[in-house]
Amino acid sequence: MSNIKNIAVFTSGGDAPGMNAAIRAVVRTGLYYNLNVFGIGRGYDGMVHGDIFPMDAKSVANIIQRGGTILKTARSEEFRTASGRQRAYENLQKQGIDGLVAIGGDGTFTGATKFIEEHNIPIIGLPGTIDNDLVGTDFTIGYDTAINTVIEAVDKIRDTAESHDRVFVVEVMGRDSGLIALRSGISVGAECVLIPEIKVDYEAMMDRLDRTRKNKASRVIIVAEGEDAGGAFAVAERIKERFPHYDMRVSILGHIQRGGSPTCMDRVLASRLGVAAVEALLEGRRGEMAGLIHGQATFTPFSKAIKHLGGINDNLLRIVDILSL
Amino acid sequence: MSNIKNIAVFTSGGDAPGMNAAIRAVVRTGLYYNLNVFGIGRGYDGMVHGDIFPMDAKSVANIIQRGGTILKTARSEEFRTASGRQRAYENLQKQGIDGLVAIGGDGTFTGATKFIEEHNIPIIGLPGTIDNDLVGTDFTIGYDTAINTVIEAVDKIRDTAESHDRVFVVEVMGRDSGLIALRSGISVGAECVLIPEIKVDYEAMMDRLDRTRKNKASRVIIVAEGEDAGGAFAVAERIKERFPHYDMRVSILGHIQRGGSPTCMDRVLASRLGVAAVEALLEGRRGEMAGLIHGQATFTPFSKAIKHLGGINDNLLRIVDILSL
Amino acid sequence: MSNIKNIAVFTSGGDAPGMNAAIRAVVRTGLYYNLNVFGIGRGYDGMVHGDIFPMDAKSVANIIQRGGTILKTARSEEFRTASGRQRAYENLQKQGIDGLVAIGGDGTFTGATKFIEEHNIPIIGLPGTIDNDLVGTDFTIGYDTAINTVIEAVDKIRDTAESHDRVFVVEVMGRDSGLIALRSGISVGAECVLIPEIKVDYEAMMDRLDRTRKNKASRVIIVAEGEDAGGAFAVAERIKERFPHYDMRVSILGHIQRGGSPTCMDRVLASRLGVAAVEALLEGRRGEMAGLIHGQATFTPFSKAIKHLGGINDNLLRIVDILSL
Amino acid sequence: MSNIKNIAVFTSGGDAPGMNAAIRAVVRTGLYYNLNVFGIGRGYDGMVHGDIFPMDAKSVANIIQRGGTILKTARSEEFRTASGRQRAYENLQKQGIDGLVAIGGDGTFTGATKFIEEHNIPIIGLPGTIDNDLVGTDFTIGYDTAINTVIEAVDKIRDTAESHDRVFVVEVMGRDSGLIALRSGISVGAECVLIPEIKVDYEAMMDRLDRTRKNKASRVIIVAEGEDAGGAFAVAERIKERFPHYDMRVSILGHIQRGGSPTCMDRVLASRLGVAAVEALLEGRRGEMAGLIHGQATFTPFSKAIKHLGGINDNLLRIVDILSL
Repeated sequence: MSNIKNIAVFTSGGDAPGMNAAIRAVVRTGLYYNLNVFGIGRGYDGMVHGDIFPMDAKSVANIIQRGGTILKTARSEEFRTASGRQRAYENLQKQGIDGLVAIGGDGTFTGATKFIEEHNIPIIGLPGTIDNDLVGTDFTIGYDTAINTVIEAVDKIRDTAESHDRVFVVEVMGRDSGLIALRSGISVGAECVLIPEIKVDYEAMMDRLDRTRKNKASRVIIVAEGEDAGGAFAVAERIKERFPHYDMRVSILGHIQRGGSPTCMDRVLASRLGVAAVEALLEGRRGEMAGLIHGQATFTPFSKAIKHLGGINDNLLRIVDILSL
Repeated sequence: MSNIKNIAVFTSGGDAPGMNAAIRAVVRTGLYYNLNVFGIGRGYDGMVHGDIFPMDAKSVANIIQRGGTILKTARSEEFRTASGRQRAYENLQKQGIDGLVAIGGDGTFTGATKFIEEHNIPIIGLPGTIDNDLVGTDFTIGYDTAINTVIEAVDKIRDTAESHDRVFVVEVMGRDSGLIALRSGISVGAECVLIPEIKVDYEAMMDRLDRTRKNKASRVIIVAEGEDAGGAFAVAERIKERFPHYDMRVSILGHIQRGGSPTCMDRVLASRLGVAAVEALLEGRRGEMAGLIHGQATFTPFSKAIKHLGGINDNLLRIVDILSL
Repeated sequence: MSNIKNIAVFTSGGDAPGMNAAIRAVVRTGLYYNLNVFGIGRGYDGMVHGDIFPMDAKSVANIIQRGGTILKTARSEEFRTASGRQRAYENLQKQGIDGLVAIGGDGTFTGATKFIEEHNIPIIGLPGTIDNDLVGTDFTIGYDTAINTVIEAVDKIRDTAESHDRVFVVEVMGRDSGLIALRSGISVGAECVLIPEIKVDYEAMMDRLDRTRKNKASRVIIVAEGEDAGGAFAVAERIKERFPHYDMRVSILGHIQRGGSPTCMDRVLASRLGVAAVEALLEGRRGEMAGLIHGQATFTPFSKAIKHLGGINDNLLRIVDILSL
Repeated sequence: MSNIKNIAVFTSGGDAPGMNAAIRAVVRTGLYYNLNVFGIGRGYDGMVHGDIFPMDAKSVANIIQRGGTILKTARSEEFRTASGRQRAYENLQKQGIDGLVAIGGDGTFTGATKFIEEHNIPIIGLPGTIDNDLVGTDFTIGYDTAINTVIEAVDKIRDTAESHDRVFVVEVMGRDSGLIALRSGISVGAECVLIPEIKVDYEAMMDRLDRTRKNKASRVIIVAEGEDAGGAFAVAERIKERFPHYDMRVSILGHIQRGGSPTCMDRVLASRLGVAAVEALLEGRRGEMAGLIHGQATFTPFSKAIKHLGGINDNLLRIVDILSL
């Protein structure tokens, strides 16, 4: 058992729906175990600049359904330096903080690892990112909401595509990872899904577009922003070259994918992991990310909780092929 | 009283949510008055190519809540020629169609006017366009849904903007009209709204952005696609020049604005106007658009149901100024 | 011109979506005109108990999209007594408050009228109620959102009704007014709409149910809670007696109708009326409700801003009949 | 390898969102493997009465996002008799159907088991029910959508509860299973969750309600319809007895929980299982339900794919306790 008495929670990296549910769970679990709980504003940057404040049960009332993060998030150049981390540590010490919960992605955990090495403070990480690209958890907090936002948007686009017999190329988030593209592509009945993990086979795509014309008034191609063809406009260009008579449109979904009220799945995931993170600190764990694998809370050392590039489920790709007849 | 026995309905121009509700209302009202009712696929193009089919009460069951148009819409080069219109007329004659309801925008009514001149067939128009830019109706079918889609999207963007203290420039539809931008701007609490009807006062905008920093974590600027500054990216560029330290992002909402299940207001409007259109045909009206002004069905000759450029409500602009403190 | 320097805003009666947008508009307009602005918690009850606090631009940041009311609302028995109102007045005087904006329904305005008579303080009312039952405005704040919530719910019910060929009786809010029932009934394509303003013609209803069987898999009857047949269960009972083989279900939508993020229409309405209310106080108006009639801000004395019972638009009833073939 | 050439798909039992996505997947996978695919209307009842029709890729275009089931579902007394099943079998034989995919719950699989015993026809089942109460799959098709519908509704109720400092008792679906109640309870931050699997500890509930008053303006209690206290009204009654001054309200969410556009999770689940079902038939499987366990398609004999009563995750109950401080 640890002697932790005062913990702090912060969010870092890109924001993701469900971060507030995670913050709420960390704060309330801390209070449940009679700890003092602090919030840190603007991630590592707030830590460096002493933006640290006490939180109670009321501070997190009525936030579970809110998108974004009430603790805010920001980049911090200073925390990348040893002197910045030193200042951050001193700010924590002033409040007597002896345990941290860091909600973010792999960049967040890299910073946390450095901080542990230098200042020997227990930190547990939570996977808060829409990209679902981390080893150590089946799903990251925010991923389910982001895909549901994508499919709501593409369902609307399908309405207008059907009315005009149009082909739409829709670009979704995922710089290194096609997971948002792949699951949303299956969900909207996309004709093709282009992702960074797989080299685009243009001939196959053109063939499919041509072949599906007789069954479908509209066609939708989902493109992950990081795929190697160069984004939605470049893909549309190539299709237009081959099929000049197609009525084509491009839509870049953009930042709406980061917002919105979290889904049930993200709220439950964030709540479970928030509880698990505080209990892990109390059990003496540190330098690990709490994740959910096969429905069980699981801990993965930060050094292994990295991006799992290339780990695309082949079966899902096969399903796109079969169902987009 | 007219001798009309067989009517047809079609949609033309850009699709808009609520078109299906209007189609349903036309079909059922026709049946209620013991008319035969036909649908025409793909607008004037379907008329030229004989894509005409009988519709009954069941054809329009369970469509009132659907976005898009089950009758589809398309451009028709052929209908722009006298010979194309001649073919269209012959196709209508084959089915004995002696009255038409045309759902679309001002381009649709221009075509209808020509068609009446040459072939003397009664046509009533319904205002189906998200732009709300037509003289003769307080609201067009689709406008209320489109703005609500915009505000749902910007509410999501606000989540992420707040989390990062960012400035977002969001581009909404409206090539010639700032009405979507203006109402959605008020609805999302935008700091500035740029519209084609008003020359952009950059100094005032920069001042406001600077001034509102202390009260607000995030700022949102709504830009109509047709405004004279050249679109959202150009606006973002200018702000960046002046305030290089701002964390800025651009989002082009695009085609999601045309889709989605229609709002109550659009369903009721479409239903009322669909009934009014058929009753107008039966009363011997022709060459007029049915609209709703001050809650009353009102008829405006096609020659006057044109775009009302420049008719921006000054009071709404003033409200943006007052409320974006 | 008035000499008003310090105003306060409060919400009273049942809450309605858009109340927060109205509060925001009142606060920011007050600040725009260099007034001091206060909020009063829990309506007249907070006034009696001194729950009064200063508000600034930040107090109302990021609330325009939130349902409910951040100022809360409550019943107040004490304010019904002269001594309670005296205490309320003294609390206002302590802060120097010399103008009020009251957001609520006709009960709110009755209280306000008494308060003006006894204490001679300027009050402007805003129509905040989902029922849309007030003389002096085309729409009340919250009405459009409530109906859209109803139609979203009934669209979901339609899914399951269609799958089972069921008849659903759905009860919506409206104790004295069928306006929510009527507009939502048209919007969801209801087969019948029962409202308190019109005596139920059971034979006509049974005939229609019988007649529409051939065209429709499912049927939906919308019942306003105040209609004279005794609510949705009583209506279902009578239908079951006549058509024992119908697969019938009842759904009482209940309190979800009061919540949710306000629609564009309610946000714009609330924003416009909030601005108008403060400007009216500054122009020396008092004892009036600000409403929107035919798109123009209009002021109606509290004595006339009462419930307009019986004022149902016959044309809308006729549309239900025509379209539910 | 099997010799199956002609398969049919049907839905049975209560409808669930995602059934259409499953139908689409079965039809398209059948076509992909060059099978003839039929649909059967109204479940076993349609089988008995010969409501069987060919389906192609187009029959299932643009349905993945629709709630309900295009094939409809119904009870069938006749199929419970041997002679009814005989007729059903003869109808299948007329079309040469030699494989079935049955989408439904444990009642559906009981019928299927009888049918296989008597007529030796291969059947694969898919878990289509919002209750998530089947052994053999981590999630059933429709469950995730239903909970998200619940939390959207309760988020709205929270708005009005907060405005009035009210206590709401909300009843959700789940006659034998508290799974919807439990996950939605965590998601909405419910103060208590009452489920059929656990005897209600009224003293603990009253204590918690009393204790949480200081931190929270509103309180929400989620009650599964089957819990032993007798439903939401009975629970509210008991609370009212103990705390007469509470402002209490009851809301029965009812049938909206069965409808709505399916979430990403349900669409992907239905798509994966639809593909798996057809491939299982082709591999010679029969009398099994396809489910997803730990992300892998898994097959469970109908005899074991029964309701898993009592299998509540204790950890989730603990989380309700910790987080509802």
